[in-house]
Amino acid sequence: MKNKKKALLACTLSIFIITSIFCCTITAQEKKQIVRLAKLVIDSTQLENYKALLKEGIETAVSIEPGVLTLYAVFEKSNPTHVTILEIYADTAAYKAHLQTPHFVKYKTATKDMVKSLELVETIPLVPGMKIK
Amino acid sequence: MKNKKKALLACTLSIFIITSIFCCTITAQEKKQIVRLAKLVIDSTQLENYKALLKEGIETAVSIEPGVLTLYAVFEKSNPTHVTILEIYADTAAYKAHLQTPHFVKYKTATKDMVKSLELVETIPLVPGMKIK
Repeated sequence: MKNKKKALLACTLSIFIITSIFCCTITAQEKKQIVRLAKLVIDSTQLENYKALLKEGIETAVSIEPGVLTLYAVFEKSNPTHVTILEIYADTAAYKAHLQTPHFVKYKTATKDMVKSLELVETIPLVPGMKIK
Repeated sequence: MKNKKKALLACTLSIFIITSIFCCTITAQEKKQIVRLAKLVIDSTQLENYKALLKEGIETAVSIEPGVLTLYAVFEKSNPTHVTILEIYADTAAYKAHLQTPHFVKYKTATKDMVKSLELVETIPLVPGMKIK
């Protein structure tokens, strides 16, 4: 009976420790994230070309780079040349690696004369780890 | 042998039809989404209270309302009173239902003297269905 109690206690304690480590790891990982808003204004005469290049760059980055957690781009309905991108990278290393990828370099080079202005706004998320259902 | 071929063909065709229906449904669902940016400026003397109320409202909405797909809020590092929220609702009905919920009414009422300005920007996502990994 005593042994059973000991085993139960050990088991409960193990679960508690494992859960704590797991939760701490997640929180620590989320703390390292780079979360920012990129605000761009695009030349209206090149908007469709720009959209195609941005879409290709984003879809490639998100699908093949594990550290690019999202690049959620939205175009304003009343100002269609205004685009905002919510960028989330796992950490600084993931962001730096992203800048060196062929698809990012291609996007950056091909769109350099299409982008009229670019503002990068560093942010702190209110609920780190928030997903899109 | 002929029957086997027929069965294989029927099976392939069924998979194709089911996949097509499934994909069309997803695309149709994504087309109905309301995606927008809420841009707010908060009274600096009430910022921490505001953050707590916004966090409570967001976490409740996302956890209990299936039609609230995300409310990703970020505070600017260099302008800590400036908050942008990427809001994604499944459709107009989900958004209207959200406005009637007790947690939204509570947030709206409690923060009305904390919000210095609010701009709601309707948008079109570049890649509908984009997630956060």
